[in-house]
Amino acid sequence: MAAPVTISPATRDDVSLLFELVMALAEYENLAHEVIGAPEDLEKHLFGDNPTAHAIVARIDGAPAGFALYFFNFSTFLMKPGIYLEDLFVLPGYRRRGIGTAIFQYLAQVALAKGCGRFEWSVLDWNQPAIDFYRSKGAVMLADWSTCRVTGQALEDLAINE
Amino acid sequence: MAAPVTISPATRDDVSLLFELVMALAEYENLAHEVIGAPEDLEKHLFGDNPTAHAIVARIDGAPAGFALYFFNFSTFLMKPGIYLEDLFVLPGYRRRGIGTAIFQYLAQVALAKGCGRFEWSVLDWNQPAIDFYRSKGAVMLADWSTCRVTGQALEDLAINE
Repeated sequence: MAAPVTISPATRDDVSLLFELVMALAEYENLAHEVIGAPEDLEKHLFGDNPTAHAIVARIDGAPAGFALYFFNFSTFLMKPGIYLEDLFVLPGYRRRGIGTAIFQYLAQVALAKGCGRFEWSVLDWNQPAIDFYRSKGAVMLADWSTCRVTGQALEDLAINE
Repeated sequence: MAAPVTISPATRDDVSLLFELVMALAEYENLAHEVIGAPEDLEKHLFGDNPTAHAIVARIDGAPAGFALYFFNFSTFLMKPGIYLEDLFVLPGYRRRGIGTAIFQYLAQVALAKGCGRFEWSVLDWNQPAIDFYRSKGAVMLADWSTCRVTGQALEDLAINE
């Protein structure tokens, strides 16, 4: 019989583990060069005063198997918060054991417990297998929006100039 | 000479005003039927303990002219929060006076003051004039992602079922 998956909120003791899991995610995506944060940044923003984001850790037989990072967004019309799943990663050796499904279920429970009006995440437009899977979970796709992002020097310029 | 625009963080005293401005936005978009929140919801989530979202009000000569609502999101790789502008609305009688620009500038300043790595918002794919305007402000478009949203009964099902 397969060992059960346990999902629990990350604590301050998990900072090093979370950092390793983020690095594993980045390496898996060939984006390790884009990780410019440090464990202290995670500690500050996840476990300091007024945390901006939250993390959960999935374990099998006590061994870390994956993680997810989420934050609360807000719907102006519902006037309620929502959950936004920013990242979900399962270590390659632990795939096909239902960990992703368990994480989605857990976050849906958090959303209901917190009185959220919705639970959202993003998918690449060309990833049809993922889109089909998410639709099977009851998700609708908001395909006609793009995200605008200002960062670095452009952000500093925007703060100063007309 | 045109009266200057002032931008200030909304306070608990602005709850009724904010509700009216959200209704004005919804009516402008012919989506008034989608507003199912109440002023008390805004008060709780914007001005209660651990607020989820934040609002700013633009005024001209002391008269409310527009508002914006934002929250903090999070970049896993930067390990830093970001600002996400959820809604921005300028009352029709106050347009073309630089209020939108003043709001973007104000939020870029908030982003820098809070140590955020980025400032983001969304635009409809077909709204080319808006896209061109945002690009002129230094924004890049993340056009190849869709948002997946689970809500209502589907959210309850996801919390229970595999």
